[in-house]
Order: sequence, then C-alpha cells, then structure tokens
Amino acid sequence: MLKSFSGAQFYVNACRLSEPWRVFISGRIISVLLHPEVCISYEWYNWDRSYGHSINLSIDLEDKMKKSLGSKTLLYPTPVWVVGTYDKDGKPNAMTIAWGGICCSKPPCVAISLRKATYSYGNIMERKAFTVNIPSEEHAGHADYFGLVSGKNEDKFAVTGLTPIKSDMVDAPYVNEFPLILECRLIHTLEIGLHTQFVGEIIDVKADESILNEKGLPDIEKVKPIIFTPETRSYHKVGAYLGAAFSIGRNVQR
Amino acid sequence: MLKSFSGAQFYVNACRLSEPWRVFISGRIISVLLHPEVCISYEWYNWDRSYGHSINLSIDLEDKMKKSLGSKTLLYPTPVWVVGTYDKDGKPNAMTIAWGGICCSKPPCVAISLRKATYSYGNIMERKAFTVNIPSEEHAGHADYFGLVSGKNEDKFAVTGLTPIKSDMVDAPYVNEFPLILECRLIHTLEIGLHTQFVGEIIDVKADESILNEKGLPDIEKVKPIIFTPETRSYHKVGAYLGAAFSIGRNVQR
Repeated sequence: MLKSFSGAQFYVNACRLSEPWRVFISGRIISVLLHPEVCISYEWYNWDRSYGHSINLSIDLEDKMKKSLGSKTLLYPTPVWVVGTYDKDGKPNAMTIAWGGICCSKPPCVAISLRKATYSYGNIMERKAFTVNIPSEEHAGHADYFGLVSGKNEDKFAVTGLTPIKSDMVDAPYVNEFPLILECRLIHTLEIGLHTQFVGEIIDVKADESILNEKGLPDIEKVKPIIFTPETRSYHKVGAYLGAAFSIGRNVQR
Repeated sequence: MLKSFSGAQFYVNACRLSEPWRVFISGRIISVLLHPEVCISYEWYNWDRSYGHSINLSIDLEDKMKKSLGSKTLLYPTPVWVVGTYDKDGKPNAMTIAWGGICCSKPPCVAISLRKATYSYGNIMERKAFTVNIPSEEHAGHADYFGLVSGKNEDKFAVTGLTPIKSDMVDAPYVNEFPLILECRLIHTLEIGLHTQFVGEIIDVKADESILNEKGLPDIEKVKPIIFTPETRSYHKVGAYLGAAFSIGRNVQR
C-alpha cells in the first residue's frame, strides 16, 4: 500500500522503479521519513527552495511506521532509588521505587510516587519526611530486595544488614552503605490514581567522599547508579561517557 | 578523633592496637560502619546475642562520614527526554528536559517540569497536550541542541532536519527519528517554584519496530536512551545488563 506524508519543508518524491527505491528530493533534504533499515538510493535536484513547503512522500511506508504499544509506563531510562522512612514507632524502613524524578530547581525538589498500600506511604504521611538513597551497582540485590517485600512484614535493614542512619536534617533515616543520599521534607502530596505523588524539598545532599570528583561533585562513574526498565523489568549499569551537556548540541546549529 | 555510633543490633568494638585496625564483633555482624577503603582485620566472638542490642563502634571515622553537599538537585540517574508541543499557530517545538519521571501506573502518567520562561510552557498551557520523545545516543547532539535554544527564536525542527509528526492521539507533535514516544494529555499542573510540574496521562506509546524485543516491548539496549547528570552536566550511555528486577533480591532474603 502506498502512503504519503506532508508537513515539512521540502518536496521529496519517491517512486519504485526497481529495487532499491529511488527517492528524488527537491531542495536540500531535511530528513528522509524512511526507516533506517530501508535501503534507498537517491538523487539530488537543487531546485528553487520556494518550490514547495511540504513533504510529499509516496512510498510504501506501511512496515516502517511507528507501532502503537498502548497506554503504558514505557519510559526509559527510569531510576532505581530507595526511599528511607521511619514508621510511627521509629522503625526505619527502605523501599525501592522507579517512579520519580527531580521536579524543581529552586527550591530543589524531588517527586516520588508510591502506592497507598505500601508501608512507606503511611510513614511519609506520618513523618512528613523521607530520604532518597541511590544504590550502587554492587547493591543491586539489596535494592531489588527492598522492592520485593513490605516493611509491614519484615525489618528490611536487619535482613540486609545495611545500616539506617538518622538524618540530621529531616525526620527520616538514610542507608549508610549507599553513596549518595537526598534528605527531603514533604511539601506537597498529589493523589493521581494507583499512585500518590510526594514532592519533597531537598534540604541536603550527602555523599561518600569516594564518589566525588575534583570539584567536590558526584562522579556518576563512581556512584554507579542503577537503571530500571519498566515492563521488561531489567536492571542496567550506567555506560560510557557520551559528551558534555549544553555543549555538544552547538555544532547542530546553523 | 574517636567517634562512636549506636543503633543497630550487635556490639562492635574496635581499638587501634597497631596497623591495621582490629575490630572485634560480638554476635553476628550486621554491617561495618567503615568506609570500604579502610583496611581492617577482624575477629569473631560468638557471644550471647542477648549481650547487646546496640553498636558501640569506637574508631576514627572522621574521614569516612558522608559529606554534606548542600541543597542541590544531585540525583542520579536523570533522563534526557525531548518534549514535543505545538504553539498557538501550530508551529511544532521540541525542548529537552531532565526533570521528570513516571508518576503513576494506573492511569499511566508521566510528570515533567518546565520553567515558565520556556516556549513549551505556553504551548502546553494552550494545547493541554505534549509528547515525551526518547532520543537515542546517535541523537545526543540534537537532544542537546533542543535544550540550548528557545522555540521563541528558532524553528528547531527546521534547524536539525528532524521531522515533526502530528500525534493521532493528542494535540502535539512527536520527533519521528526518535525510537520511543509517549503521547500525553495534560491532567494536572503544579506550581512548585522556578519550575511548573505538568502531569500527563500517557494515552499511547509509539515505538520503532527496530527497538522492540521478541515480546513486542522496547529493548533498552536498542533504544539506547541517554543519561544526564545534574551539576556535572554530562551525558552517558546505558551500560551492561545487571540482572532481572523483582528477582535478584530474592537471594538477599533469609
């Protein structure tokens, strides 16, 4: 079946003369709406730019269009963070989450989402505070465990042997063995659906000296945080350096 | 200087007899509050568990305690996502963000935070819709560019040559060249401070066939999303597989 697209700035005409497809482009090509796997040969015609301001691409694109996966939480990457809280009796708890992220620069705030059924939900409502603890690769098993069981039934710190330290800033414990910790005071709660979102102001960040760079900031290659993939449910490491932010895009500009 | 900690379940006694430190532990050790770099030799004394329920660790920990970095958005990993919107005249815009994350499973929702000063802020307020586009490593330069300039001043799609496609589900465009796309309808807005948080319900997810696994779900090693580090401002790739979520922690349990 032949499909055509329009909307961008230059004419693209394609016709199937033989294998492979031949795509003729008027003006400078902005992009080819073909899938990378499609082998195309093309010729350039440097026609007058004013000739057209839409793409008219006629080619069999049926197999190359994006596939609909439905209404799902398929967003990559998502983090692996451990939320530290105290219950009403002062028992420390740790729970692993992947639903969260920074939500404001000034004041520095982080949003985390928890189900009402969790033990940590009640703890945050009670204490109005939590910590966000970033586990290293080496603690992937512990982080996974913290997400498998409920603090209602188990003393997760006792089971793992990890050490809860009382924050000196907020009414919550942090995991001493994890290299990077955010101490947060609850400032907002939003009921969304299955999950409740808690917005915490980041009162202080604490880090092991061993993960800091020469400027005293965390080096992600030393922190070694864990990446989670929703639905496919895997953990990955952080990989190689790609480039400097607010920098590598300067070459893109005309 | 000697410091002591207490709080956990077993006695730990340490004294500096000579190099290295000698740490004597009564009962089963839950954790050693020492920095991994500290070389210790230790001996076990299987004394009566009832002997103590606190750690009493006397050792020079001054250099091994966590360092306070202040109130900062130092949370790793954070994502690199591109938000797609239309302005009131229908011009498509793309803006890179790192402040966001999934915030609910049912309904599937994503939260993104933008400053009021951005062009996209006005677009989302106007159209009540946005897309979240996940760039691959190969588009790191484009993603960086999308965060460097404002749609007020430049037609970012024209400059990059990337292709805006109108979503068939929401009133927003997506970036055709990026492999994974979330189409979102605005359901909530929260003013926090410098940033405004937008909660969008994920109406559909669209993906290139080429990044799907045998179960039809995105394979993160094919998506190749980008990781951002706040403050140190770097981009990193996703690295090696670490393990299966909701699985590797089972070994931790007693």
